[in-house]
Amino acid sequence: MLNVGILGAGRIGQVHAVNVAGNRESRLVAVSDVYAPAADALAKQYDATVRSSEEIIADPAIDAVLIATSTDTHSDLIEAAAAANKAILCEKPVDLSVDRARLCQSRTKEATRPIMVAFNRRFDPNFAALQKAAAGGEIGKTELLSITSFDPAPPPLEYIKVSGGLFRDMMIHDLDMATFLMGEAPVKISAVGSALVDPEIGVAGDVDTAVATLTYGDGRLAVIKNSRRAAYGYDQRVELLGSKGLLSLENIRESTISKATEKGVLSAKPEHFFLERYAQAYVVEWQAFVDAALHDTPVPATLQDGITALALADAAAQSAATGQPVALDL
Amino acid sequence: MLNVGILGAGRIGQVHAVNVAGNRESRLVAVSDVYAPAADALAKQYDATVRSSEEIIADPAIDAVLIATSTDTHSDLIEAAAAANKAILCEKPVDLSVDRARLCQSRTKEATRPIMVAFNRRFDPNFAALQKAAAGGEIGKTELLSITSFDPAPPPLEYIKVSGGLFRDMMIHDLDMATFLMGEAPVKISAVGSALVDPEIGVAGDVDTAVATLTYGDGRLAVIKNSRRAAYGYDQRVELLGSKGLLSLENIRESTISKATEKGVLSAKPEHFFLERYAQAYVVEWQAFVDAALHDTPVPATLQDGITALALADAAAQSAATGQPVALDL
Amino acid sequence: MLNVGILGAGRIGQVHAVNVAGNRESRLVAVSDVYAPAADALAKQYDATVRSSEEIIADPAIDAVLIATSTDTHSDLIEAAAAANKAILCEKPVDLSVDRARLCQSRTKEATRPIMVAFNRRFDPNFAALQKAAAGGEIGKTELLSITSFDPAPPPLEYIKVSGGLFRDMMIHDLDMATFLMGEAPVKISAVGSALVDPEIGVAGDVDTAVATLTYGDGRLAVIKNSRRAAYGYDQRVELLGSKGLLSLENIRESTISKATEKGVLSAKPEHFFLERYAQAYVVEWQAFVDAALHDTPVPATLQDGITALALADAAAQSAATGQPVALDL
Amino acid sequence: MLNVGILGAGRIGQVHAVNVAGNRESRLVAVSDVYAPAADALAKQYDATVRSSEEIIADPAIDAVLIATSTDTHSDLIEAAAAANKAILCEKPVDLSVDRARLCQSRTKEATRPIMVAFNRRFDPNFAALQKAAAGGEIGKTELLSITSFDPAPPPLEYIKVSGGLFRDMMIHDLDMATFLMGEAPVKISAVGSALVDPEIGVAGDVDTAVATLTYGDGRLAVIKNSRRAAYGYDQRVELLGSKGLLSLENIRESTISKATEKGVLSAKPEHFFLERYAQAYVVEWQAFVDAALHDTPVPATLQDGITALALADAAAQSAATGQPVALDL
Repeated sequence: MLNVGILGAGRIGQVHAVNVAGNRESRLVAVSDVYAPAADALAKQYDATVRSSEEIIADPAIDAVLIATSTDTHSDLIEAAAAANKAILCEKPVDLSVDRARLCQSRTKEATRPIMVAFNRRFDPNFAALQKAAAGGEIGKTELLSITSFDPAPPPLEYIKVSGGLFRDMMIHDLDMATFLMGEAPVKISAVGSALVDPEIGVAGDVDTAVATLTYGDGRLAVIKNSRRAAYGYDQRVELLGSKGLLSLENIRESTISKATEKGVLSAKPEHFFLERYAQAYVVEWQAFVDAALHDTPVPATLQDGITALALADAAAQSAATGQPVALDL
Repeated sequence: MLNVGILGAGRIGQVHAVNVAGNRESRLVAVSDVYAPAADALAKQYDATVRSSEEIIADPAIDAVLIATSTDTHSDLIEAAAAANKAILCEKPVDLSVDRARLCQSRTKEATRPIMVAFNRRFDPNFAALQKAAAGGEIGKTELLSITSFDPAPPPLEYIKVSGGLFRDMMIHDLDMATFLMGEAPVKISAVGSALVDPEIGVAGDVDTAVATLTYGDGRLAVIKNSRRAAYGYDQRVELLGSKGLLSLENIRESTISKATEKGVLSAKPEHFFLERYAQAYVVEWQAFVDAALHDTPVPATLQDGITALALADAAAQSAATGQPVALDL
Repeated sequence: MLNVGILGAGRIGQVHAVNVAGNRESRLVAVSDVYAPAADALAKQYDATVRSSEEIIADPAIDAVLIATSTDTHSDLIEAAAAANKAILCEKPVDLSVDRARLCQSRTKEATRPIMVAFNRRFDPNFAALQKAAAGGEIGKTELLSITSFDPAPPPLEYIKVSGGLFRDMMIHDLDMATFLMGEAPVKISAVGSALVDPEIGVAGDVDTAVATLTYGDGRLAVIKNSRRAAYGYDQRVELLGSKGLLSLENIRESTISKATEKGVLSAKPEHFFLERYAQAYVVEWQAFVDAALHDTPVPATLQDGITALALADAAAQSAATGQPVALDL
Repeated sequence: MLNVGILGAGRIGQVHAVNVAGNRESRLVAVSDVYAPAADALAKQYDATVRSSEEIIADPAIDAVLIATSTDTHSDLIEAAAAANKAILCEKPVDLSVDRARLCQSRTKEATRPIMVAFNRRFDPNFAALQKAAAGGEIGKTELLSITSFDPAPPPLEYIKVSGGLFRDMMIHDLDMATFLMGEAPVKISAVGSALVDPEIGVAGDVDTAVATLTYGDGRLAVIKNSRRAAYGYDQRVELLGSKGLLSLENIRESTISKATEKGVLSAKPEHFFLERYAQAYVVEWQAFVDAALHDTPVPATLQDGITALALADAAAQSAATGQPVALDL
């Protein structure tokens, strides 16, 4: 049994809490949050105690911590928890600074317990099956990857101002997915972006619509399309062209019902947003962490994966800002 | 080169005329119609002459006749044309009376030129491919056939009063399709019908919504669903369950465009009606007739097929009227 | 909090147990089974006690019983539990004898706690949404219902010999769904069936492939297609034609991935069988029962619904055996 | 009636010939080709005469010429035919040199008869409907266009060596489509390409897999993905994201049949290549030219459109070669 403390009781902490509590091999024992009412509410819901993050990390009866605090605290908490010999699942991004994330990696390199980064999409059964099919050679040699990733609506401007921007808070998922599916990091990235959805996003120095093109060492290509707005919901699709065919991953619809009338055939929209779309992914992700912590299975998304994705996001942001491609050596 | 006379210049005669004229091996030379302006218009369009049906049949320079007149004249014209040694393509049904159709078959049994019945759907590339797949064992032994066949809107009441009713003018196509796909005629048929679309259809003694269940000699089953109205257009689908899988034939849509909005994903309706849906079937059907007439290929839809379909339609109508299943020996 | 005893620890009892235990307002406290190891295993898994059905029913601390025993015990257990003032969720069918089920209904008519029959498909979000759309007039007046319901593979012959046969153990679900979607019971039913999948099923006096046609009082029609075998998995689809359009409910696929190669485009099969396909339906069903038991919401599937479905199944079996339609007055 | 001469009796000339002959308002009267047997065969098929291009252009009885010769002759022939007052339909590209094409435009600017460039995809009913839907505001303001365009297999190396390469012979279609759908030319283009399908293509100085990103004056974005090989056939799809939704254009499948087995659900591949996929587009294109020539309707694809597409192709090729984005002022 894995005794777990959750650091950060906000939206994503709550998403994880239900899986920590629902898993047969883990138990939610403690919760922390700088905003006390959030910690109280979450702790009460699962009969857990409220403590500070420091107290949780210091408690030898707690085996693992799930870091779901604000990004600027991630590196410090990882380092403290690793020093206290905890198994660690940390939300992405590891940090907004690649240098700081690398320092964190260096400082925790002696850790003997798993340190895992929460790239939830890798654990979605569909994405996982796609990766497996591609890696298994079902379409021969992969050549051209295309990721479509649109949010239903932009986040609040306040969030955008601190999130690191579209490339670091949104495209980072797709950049990690590209690495996951292509099996390696690209050697060059080129990106363009515009503020088309909301001019205020542009005023805030960010973009809301973007395209990035990735070139791999052997010439393979990938393209990522992002928009902060899709009127029809959360659009999460992938196409991967190989020498022997094309693998396509479609959205999950809200229902399997369609209605044919004189206007046409109306079918359901995609599931609305990540909480719905990736509900099962969060369950599988937590199980993968539990397996790594209790049963020594390999960590499926490492600190290095987090650093790679962040470095790619930085490079994409730089390319979009300068209009020049950025070479990478990851 | 096949010199062709078209008997009947109405809608279906016009459908055929374009294919007779467009085929490299056939030429439209004469047209007849009891309504002179119709004959004139069609003849003018294709540089053909207007003559009576008798004159066309009597002309030794004409090799083939296409019978697209009213149903009550079909048997007489087939017999006359066969006696004149014409190749014959006759629109369905052969007759509204099975007995009369059988007499026609008996009287033309010595004919040396092809006599073909125009079951257009057999020639549709999709239906033909489905039949081939089933006959080729792609789903093992066939067990359960399901045909969905809805018209976009009911015909005029006047038509219904002389057409023989839903079973003889509409379901007859599906009954023939069942025979085509199952490879034999059923031994029992049970049908129910209601006037739900338009009460006036009920007053006229017909139904507009019907279901027929067919049982084959070896226990295999088929079900046919008919409605005179589908708000979304012409619905023509088939499913065939076999021991190793299911073959499904979907509608052809008016376009391949879809539009995703906050209301859902709207895609195009099926092609509206038979002129659109079976445009290519009519081309292939005519080619099959030309091949039979000029190149001695087998006649793919015979007088016997026409009689079988008509007998099945009669039995379905009888079952719906009496509430009792009807045994068949075709 | 609803304290629950599960009577019957077989497959379906286990399906329910996870939801009883997982629901925030219910608690699994006791389990019974004539086969002691099954009861022990299930009880141990959820920290429940093992007792006899009689003991569970007699325990005033238990608020509700879930009857998942063999069908021949259902009526007796319902009556005993109702007499003991329990809320009751009973698996279908209520009984294999309509008379016995009606007696059970009569004997429990004074019960003040909910008695609910477990027609799981009514609670599936897709079926529920379809019913709501139809009842809400989204396609105008409903006219023609079509239900496709194929199991992936036949059950063991031993099961078929005691189950009441295809019409009572399999089509009963579809007959209830027809009542649910059409809003009333039919006045006539006609059915045909054959043993095509396995001749031994025929030897055992049952069929494995069947079609039933239902006629409603106002002339509306429904058709149900059943097969014990679909090589591609569990096929659960519905189409409902109305005056203004068609509602279609498609299968849920095992994944949203497709692979295009020179052979064609291969997409995933339907979810394999009812445990997968209706996993969510069981959760919703249990919540509906908890709501009825604790919050006095209406019982969404009553003893009367169970009797209606059983009477329809009897009539379908009779029609298939005699070759004659059966009139109904339900 | 439009009397037409076809210059060039190769594959694309033959594609057009059937439509010239089949159109009620045009007549194929003369054919030229530097390879005499090709001209003879085509002329014979349609009862046309064989002449030199110069003779055809000089013949006052010929109203229009269709230029389907090798690209290096297009500009000269356009100029000569315009000087002879012919209506002109010229295959794309206008020229491999933008400067030469501009000179041609300048030299023919006084022409009073239509000069049209054969961008066939604009006339495909699906693409045309998509453009109309976007221009009509069905998805609000367009923001992000994505074009997928894969050929089934690479052309012979000999063709690639003279075609101008992937960007000028293949992507040019997609670049024109982007202009057609976005309603204007972009201000910046960035492209990458690799030889992944066949290393020999790389040795010949070309690429076979490419991605181009287009930026419009108002920040809108478009991305084009090309591959010379798709094992499953000709892949021609478009997605256009707007402020109110997404328009998607899917492939046309070879059939509407699918087969569900234990391996999954297999449906048909896309239509194999452009002759099948755009057969109807060629018919509509020719009608549009006839309408412009006989009925003074606007020319739907002008010399300027041809120059724009060529300039975009040049810029994409330059970007892919230098690794730098290219600014445009078209």
